[in-house]
Amino acid sequence: MEHRYDATALSAFATGLFEAAGLNADKASTIGSLLVEADLMGHTTHGLQLCAPYLKALEEGTMLKEGGPEILSDRGAVATWDGRRLPGVWLTARGVDLAVERAKTYGTASIAIRRSHHIACLAVFLERATREGCMVQIACSDPAVASVAPYGGTEPLFTPDPIAVGIPTSGDPILIDTSASITTNGLTGRLQNEGKKLPGKWVQDADGAATDDPGVLFTDPPGTILPIGGQGYGHKGYGLALMIEALTQGLAGHGRADPADGWGAGVHIQVSDPTAFSGRDAFNRQIDHIVEKCLTNKPATPGTPVRLPGQNAIRKRRTAEENGLQLYPGIMEALKPWAKKYNIALPSQWTP
Amino acid sequence: MEHRYDATALSAFATGLFEAAGLNADKASTIGSLLVEADLMGHTTHGLQLCAPYLKALEEGTMLKEGGPEILSDRGAVATWDGRRLPGVWLTARGVDLAVERAKTYGTASIAIRRSHHIACLAVFLERATREGCMVQIACSDPAVASVAPYGGTEPLFTPDPIAVGIPTSGDPILIDTSASITTNGLTGRLQNEGKKLPGKWVQDADGAATDDPGVLFTDPPGTILPIGGQGYGHKGYGLALMIEALTQGLAGHGRADPADGWGAGVHIQVSDPTAFSGRDAFNRQIDHIVEKCLTNKPATPGTPVRLPGQNAIRKRRTAEENGLQLYPGIMEALKPWAKKYNIALPSQWTP
Repeated sequence: MEHRYDATALSAFATGLFEAAGLNADKASTIGSLLVEADLMGHTTHGLQLCAPYLKALEEGTMLKEGGPEILSDRGAVATWDGRRLPGVWLTARGVDLAVERAKTYGTASIAIRRSHHIACLAVFLERATREGCMVQIACSDPAVASVAPYGGTEPLFTPDPIAVGIPTSGDPILIDTSASITTNGLTGRLQNEGKKLPGKWVQDADGAATDDPGVLFTDPPGTILPIGGQGYGHKGYGLALMIEALTQGLAGHGRADPADGWGAGVHIQVSDPTAFSGRDAFNRQIDHIVEKCLTNKPATPGTPVRLPGQNAIRKRRTAEENGLQLYPGIMEALKPWAKKYNIALPSQWTP
Repeated sequence: MEHRYDATALSAFATGLFEAAGLNADKASTIGSLLVEADLMGHTTHGLQLCAPYLKALEEGTMLKEGGPEILSDRGAVATWDGRRLPGVWLTARGVDLAVERAKTYGTASIAIRRSHHIACLAVFLERATREGCMVQIACSDPAVASVAPYGGTEPLFTPDPIAVGIPTSGDPILIDTSASITTNGLTGRLQNEGKKLPGKWVQDADGAATDDPGVLFTDPPGTILPIGGQGYGHKGYGLALMIEALTQGLAGHGRADPADGWGAGVHIQVSDPTAFSGRDAFNRQIDHIVEKCLTNKPATPGTPVRLPGQNAIRKRRTAEENGLQLYPGIMEALKPWAKKYNIALPSQWTP
């Protein structure tokens, strides 16, 4: 029988676990609710699946609990933070909020964060900006992790290097969640555990042979995830990877040139306020027009309409809020020992 | 026998043509030298091949000659220009120069330009910023042109939506020239004229069948260029296209929602000054490290080392500066009638 949960109860449960692990209410509730948000939007590898690893990192002291980021520079439109390995979900949420505030003054704002802990699902931060009428880009990389080779190479150098973009419209925002590589560490790891193949030749073995077998990432020496464009035109993904690594490590001033200090992230947040350019009405007029032209575009597969990025995620969230959230198998099982340890009641199941 | 030209002589020749067509010395020399720069860097579809069409546009009055952009907003870190259909190469060069100047004050700066004429090769503008130690992103789209469908659709909606990124290093800059689509209007048009196929299934016909035949773009109704990721994971390119159209049309406040007013561009320029973040030394330390790790990465094809974006272009430019520039076939032939008309001497051939 399938278990469904109330999203609010799940958030409270995760918040309780993080508070028990030593985070204050602000940090615990920000992280708890945003992990659940990822599950609500269908990003099941980057939601509560991360709760147990985060609790472990807090317990081990590799994720810091106390205080805030150290401000390394502040020029108004630009700020640089040392995240001191504080929880990345909390740092990124605060970073987006600050960038929105600064963009309202300067028209644009850019925040670089070094030594953040892991930041989970980039898509869940976008609506903090789009709700304020702003366009936002969030990129991150983990300088301690390498799973993607430069185009034409075979040795892991980059992380998948995600970039998420939020674009406000008159209706639901456009929520883009993409990356410089074809697929993610999360998906390849999950498919490997489940004995499944990738949908295409999205990885290569250590000799550079393209394959759909995620197992090549776990050999010694390991294979690599291919940049977008694969072996045909992977210079496109390689270029994006270099851009994202420069934004998240170069501007942040900490990265692969430094000794690896564990699971974490360099982050770059960029917010633009349309009112400082041509105005919100002029912005919406263009974006609404493009949205309409996308949604009414004649589909390649009859009966399968063109979608907007984020449309499925927003629909899934609405459905889950109305009908309860079914977690990906194994997630609640991984949290039960922590709930027991911290004496936190499990969330009650959904009752319509 | 192959014709080679001196780059300086070619620039002077193109500058002379543009002056004869009615542009002042600043505009003519900026455009003339930057078109030659594109040829020097090997971007032969976006160099002097555009000279004749630009001269025609000036003659017809669809490319404006006089005056500068109208300043629609100026918030210091952000400015919006109405390009009034002035030459896009000149507008973009001036936009990058202003963005660099503003980034030195604010740390970051963003310039949106509506109603620019065509801006040619994005890569040639990057070094104006990297020479100043800044990172730059330039995106453009032509709202009057559509050749790429949204992922899952079949009707042309977007331009290929290029984005170029310049990253300073301690040595040569990284010059990334990529786009939201697999290939360009320029390349598909040239291959079609030459009766050639694409290197992969980079386009689809009007029913959504992927093919390597550029001819499907010239049927009625036309096929479309595929977003990066193609039919497998083209949501990645689709997301980038939406981001670029929002930056270049949404922020600029003019685009596909307006009546098409001919060959032109919406442009977005973003410059970041590393000194406002963690400092130039910290930036270089990270980027130089990544550069080293790219160049020494074990190649997939033995004997074919991994390259950096821009490395080939910079090498080609050095070679052409030393040994003369061989233009792509047909380019000088297209300019001879204009030279005759305006009584401009043809550039002399290269003498070592």
